[in-house]
Amino acid sequence: MSGNTFGKLLQITTFGESHGLSIGGILDGLPAGLTIDLEQVQNELDRRRPGSSEITTPRNEKDLVEFFSGLIINESDNDPSNKSENQLFISTGTPIGFRIENKDAKSEDYEHLENTYRPSHADYTYDKKYGLRDIRGGGRASARETASRVVGGAIAKQLLYRTHKIEISAYVERVQDISVPFSPAFFGRKVIDSNIVRCPSSDIADRMIQRIQEARDDGDTLGGAIVVLTKNVPAGWGEPVFDKLNADLAKALMSIPSVKGIEVGSGFSGTLMKGSEHNDAFNSDKEGKVFTTTNRSGGIQGGISNGEEIIVRIAFKPVATIKKAQDSIDKDGNKITLEGKGRHDPCVLPRAIPIVEAMVALVLGDHLLRQRSARL
Amino acid sequence: MSGNTFGKLLQITTFGESHGLSIGGILDGLPAGLTIDLEQVQNELDRRRPGSSEITTPRNEKDLVEFFSGLIINESDNDPSNKSENQLFISTGTPIGFRIENKDAKSEDYEHLENTYRPSHADYTYDKKYGLRDIRGGGRASARETASRVVGGAIAKQLLYRTHKIEISAYVERVQDISVPFSPAFFGRKVIDSNIVRCPSSDIADRMIQRIQEARDDGDTLGGAIVVLTKNVPAGWGEPVFDKLNADLAKALMSIPSVKGIEVGSGFSGTLMKGSEHNDAFNSDKEGKVFTTTNRSGGIQGGISNGEEIIVRIAFKPVATIKKAQDSIDKDGNKITLEGKGRHDPCVLPRAIPIVEAMVALVLGDHLLRQRSARL
Amino acid sequence: MSGNTFGKLLQITTFGESHGLSIGGILDGLPAGLTIDLEQVQNELDRRRPGSSEITTPRNEKDLVEFFSGLIINESDNDPSNKSENQLFISTGTPIGFRIENKDAKSEDYEHLENTYRPSHADYTYDKKYGLRDIRGGGRASARETASRVVGGAIAKQLLYRTHKIEISAYVERVQDISVPFSPAFFGRKVIDSNIVRCPSSDIADRMIQRIQEARDDGDTLGGAIVVLTKNVPAGWGEPVFDKLNADLAKALMSIPSVKGIEVGSGFSGTLMKGSEHNDAFNSDKEGKVFTTTNRSGGIQGGISNGEEIIVRIAFKPVATIKKAQDSIDKDGNKITLEGKGRHDPCVLPRAIPIVEAMVALVLGDHLLRQRSARL
Amino acid sequence: MSGNTFGKLLQITTFGESHGLSIGGILDGLPAGLTIDLEQVQNELDRRRPGSSEITTPRNEKDLVEFFSGLIINESDNDPSNKSENQLFISTGTPIGFRIENKDAKSEDYEHLENTYRPSHADYTYDKKYGLRDIRGGGRASARETASRVVGGAIAKQLLYRTHKIEISAYVERVQDISVPFSPAFFGRKVIDSNIVRCPSSDIADRMIQRIQEARDDGDTLGGAIVVLTKNVPAGWGEPVFDKLNADLAKALMSIPSVKGIEVGSGFSGTLMKGSEHNDAFNSDKEGKVFTTTNRSGGIQGGISNGEEIIVRIAFKPVATIKKAQDSIDKDGNKITLEGKGRHDPCVLPRAIPIVEAMVALVLGDHLLRQRSARL
Repeated sequence: MSGNTFGKLLQITTFGESHGLSIGGILDGLPAGLTIDLEQVQNELDRRRPGSSEITTPRNEKDLVEFFSGLIINESDNDPSNKSENQLFISTGTPIGFRIENKDAKSEDYEHLENTYRPSHADYTYDKKYGLRDIRGGGRASARETASRVVGGAIAKQLLYRTHKIEISAYVERVQDISVPFSPAFFGRKVIDSNIVRCPSSDIADRMIQRIQEARDDGDTLGGAIVVLTKNVPAGWGEPVFDKLNADLAKALMSIPSVKGIEVGSGFSGTLMKGSEHNDAFNSDKEGKVFTTTNRSGGIQGGISNGEEIIVRIAFKPVATIKKAQDSIDKDGNKITLEGKGRHDPCVLPRAIPIVEAMVALVLGDHLLRQRSARL
Repeated sequence: MSGNTFGKLLQITTFGESHGLSIGGILDGLPAGLTIDLEQVQNELDRRRPGSSEITTPRNEKDLVEFFSGLIINESDNDPSNKSENQLFISTGTPIGFRIENKDAKSEDYEHLENTYRPSHADYTYDKKYGLRDIRGGGRASARETASRVVGGAIAKQLLYRTHKIEISAYVERVQDISVPFSPAFFGRKVIDSNIVRCPSSDIADRMIQRIQEARDDGDTLGGAIVVLTKNVPAGWGEPVFDKLNADLAKALMSIPSVKGIEVGSGFSGTLMKGSEHNDAFNSDKEGKVFTTTNRSGGIQGGISNGEEIIVRIAFKPVATIKKAQDSIDKDGNKITLEGKGRHDPCVLPRAIPIVEAMVALVLGDHLLRQRSARL
Repeated sequence: MSGNTFGKLLQITTFGESHGLSIGGILDGLPAGLTIDLEQVQNELDRRRPGSSEITTPRNEKDLVEFFSGLIINESDNDPSNKSENQLFISTGTPIGFRIENKDAKSEDYEHLENTYRPSHADYTYDKKYGLRDIRGGGRASARETASRVVGGAIAKQLLYRTHKIEISAYVERVQDISVPFSPAFFGRKVIDSNIVRCPSSDIADRMIQRIQEARDDGDTLGGAIVVLTKNVPAGWGEPVFDKLNADLAKALMSIPSVKGIEVGSGFSGTLMKGSEHNDAFNSDKEGKVFTTTNRSGGIQGGISNGEEIIVRIAFKPVATIKKAQDSIDKDGNKITLEGKGRHDPCVLPRAIPIVEAMVALVLGDHLLRQRSARL
Repeated sequence: MSGNTFGKLLQITTFGESHGLSIGGILDGLPAGLTIDLEQVQNELDRRRPGSSEITTPRNEKDLVEFFSGLIINESDNDPSNKSENQLFISTGTPIGFRIENKDAKSEDYEHLENTYRPSHADYTYDKKYGLRDIRGGGRASARETASRVVGGAIAKQLLYRTHKIEISAYVERVQDISVPFSPAFFGRKVIDSNIVRCPSSDIADRMIQRIQEARDDGDTLGGAIVVLTKNVPAGWGEPVFDKLNADLAKALMSIPSVKGIEVGSGFSGTLMKGSEHNDAFNSDKEGKVFTTTNRSGGIQGGISNGEEIIVRIAFKPVATIKKAQDSIDKDGNKITLEGKGRHDPCVLPRAIPIVEAMVALVLGDHLLRQRSARL
């Protein structure tokens, strides 16, 4: 009820502040019997991890996730090569508790902020909401909280893939005004992670990286857009009215820090078309498989998946933490000038890729289970 | 769980198909003691009602709402002029059940669609989800369902206004490529409803109306954008992580039929700015009241309201029902040509205004109550 | 959140006051494709209906339920004899809205109670909760609200029976101190409804009826116990920790007006045994079907059904409304003497039978769906 | 949805198996600004801790709880004596994550049970539910899971006490057939914990202890009844229909392992009375404070608290784990004889006292917050 739980059947509840002892969560509702590769979970965390490239925050967190419950060793995994390197687990149907320790928290960086409100941060609004706040590192408002989402999402991805071959892949489409035109080849970890900005065109990626470095050197930050694509979602997922698949995706993605806009399928540009131009004609192939000849719907019609690729675009504003002097006020309303400190990303988009994918996976994992009750 | 309920503390659950006996719902969680003007509720329904102007569907529904429960006559309303014309009620804290009869349903218009899938409608996806569907008039997927949301939203508006003077006002900003530049004067029923397209600039409204009439005469449809503004939300509403105020608004608005995009504050255009340009500096006036000198955050920071105006933009695609021939398939996958029939809107945006406002009101009403548990 | 919704996947939300225009509700989450016999629904309501025998309240309500949505005519029901007499419907997966009109409300009977608190009623507590109340007929606190539960439960029964042959049968085991010893023959509508007190032994039923008539003639009321038995629930339903099947049943049944106690299986008497006496030994028959040689667990172990008969006993206190003078206070705390008026049951147990069965059906229907997500 | 979360506004979600790495949970929804004494939390855990007396299981768990988030040090706690001994914390309004390590798990004790079903345990039902199970120590079905509830309940107790002086006190009323008559003096930790069986009459406690020792020496187990009393709950808490205060208490308490029966107020014995005998007459004292002259309602009328003491009685069956040979079956349905192993309590009632109190505290804490939305 306090908004720390996401999902209705597959539910993740997270806890933790940026500079507390640990962050973590509970993933509940995962069906029993799912084979889980914990290396893949850690690997997703590593993709999100701070300090992993020259264009991310220098905060250095190993972000090793510890699992407490809900898993047993897969005894039927008899392949000795697996045993030695990559032990597989199996879900028991009970909640999976986990945590990630905060090791490199430098809370002293934040002491000067105790009584001041950083522009476009959550300092002021938290104070207004709660009457107090954990000032260290942004507390619960810090994007560090999203590491727990990545853990849950990484398990949801395995549920989706093992049961339906569903794959989710996001990439950085635009940094400020440097954008890459759409290509169907832009899909999959190998392509996306081929450079540190996670834009799957190396030329444009180079320009983006240069732009981000300039912003960083100037003490400034940049925003942009991410596109996330999902393949192999069967037709029929999503609920018809309030919990439309697009509505749940919009909420999931808008809940990521710094997100200011969401488009499904044709989005805002589709509003320039006429109905006769925008409609996606149905067709069928020789085997009788139904498809649409275009996909302006973005794979969702009437709130329910139609079997086509699900396409969502997300707008990230430039991060609020800058190293330039800014006008602000203190707790008593006095005007002050604020100098930027702390360790932050000049552009969050590369690190946001696994977060975006995780939120999509959590939404789809939830609707996978919900669909089980749709028919007799 | 089937997505027919919205909200956590203030909850609306709706039922009903376009061509069934009635649509309706239950508004639950409204605190006891709220004075409710049922005329205002009916008035909101009238704003959404079909057949109300030459640019909407000719379906003729009176859309009179009947209330079954949860209200008692306000005995302390001793003003005789009130008594005669506009009896006020008071909420008892128990659920408010209501319905709206479907009177002008012409189901025979839909018989030819029983075995065919209209492009970009929910016919195909419903069949895939449920294995069957109520084919008449789009069934539950019809935008007729939103009338129940308007009833709930109209009551939520009164909760917001009577307790906090919160006002919500939406207008049509753009039809296809005809748009109106922002003006702070574009606020309030009187201004917005001054013309049938609900664009508060009469010149631009005329151009929009003409464009819609052309589309209608051509058997085609148009989309566009709506902006919704909310004043007087106190700082501190919204939950920090998954149930951010912007996330809940995004879900609420994305759940409206035909919506393909959502922007909060600076939205996609804000991604072109640098952090130093985008940040909203805090300031305070002589009385110590805090404000931001700009409002690119759209009134929400870290998922929580900051006291500034809340600004959201919504993209509506052109309606899928057109009167032109279209390629499609039947249930067996055979290719067919579909002729458009039925009564539909050439452009839904004017009628969507009260629906957008209703969804914003339901989100804010919910968070009004949730905020009551935020502090000791 | 205001406690007017029950269930997590199969959800019923009810509305309505005893003397308002209508009571009713929405049953949501029912899978598409279920054949529904609406006559059976009405028949359950008739079992609960007031005025049906000399030992129930003389309030005369036809209690005809009207359905608004969520159902289509079962076109594949080609048996002409069905068509003429008992049209079958089929669920569409969308919410089923319904209402029952209040026709014989005599609100003037309650005017004298506006400022007084009837002992052991909800008058005082509603005033303390809400600051106001609908005084007519007990408002939302009236047992009339349970008619909506019976509608939802009657549909849930059909879900349970058609998918798993699950049958639920309750009977009056005790009125005051007149009780009937357990017999395995006490199961099924035919046996239970063979007399007006719904105790399946005619001799003991006669004694119970006589005792109830004496109480009624004396202006007094009686309580007792109901046993509810459920057959054919598969092993494996129920959640392990908070939503144990017994816990959900306890809540469901304790939420019925006048209930003061719940026992599952051996209940309080089982606490007198030793573990070695109480344990239910497992055994298996020739076909390998597992069973327990005793059933002190009442069909539930570790919160999960084990395939044996589910046994629950419910204590109903004597109804609070009596026709004798009682000491009480008015709203201002002044001591008064209260005379009983209104039309009420001298003993609610016979009419509570269909309510008890409905709540059990709603719990099991919910867990039927929840079990669909337990395994990969 | 998998039943690992309890509460609607104040929510606890727990994780963990008896012999996994850790158990723990997240307490969410606690308002910001509550002073929390973590020593009191640990103290409640110590009351529940195994190995604490000669009549409990010899499993030796320190049960030290670690908190990860949601708390900050109370800077305004300036009393130096507090600082040195018992640092106070303050809630931030964000979720409180915690865990308790499993240190003395002897999983090898359970290896012989992998393919067998212990009578009246959850082995068989878990297998039927999930298709697999964590066999060590009962896994998630173990009463060890309740330690997490005690942590949440201990914090809820502080919320209740600091805001309303609400106190909850449970005691062992009966072990098998040895019972203590009610006395108003039986309230409070000092009285209840004065002996190891937690029956507040030392004579009867001695008899109970002797009986438990006899059962233990005989390899057998005993059940009994616990009474839980709650003082100072204001009139007006609880929801009218499904979430009646008694219904939520019944669910909460029935979800504790081994519970088979619940009575509120007069319970089953009240069903022997007439309405005229059972009704609780209202009265008021000189200051106008309303009270009832009797309390057969157990402090709850129409599902809502009336300001009187809340009285609930809970039946605990004898624990299923005994050290005697028992008939059972293995996974393949073959009949076997099972020897009892593992470390278990001959009578769980003394250790169940803090669990019962915790569940009552969680229910009341939830309704404390829910009541904040009942009125305008």
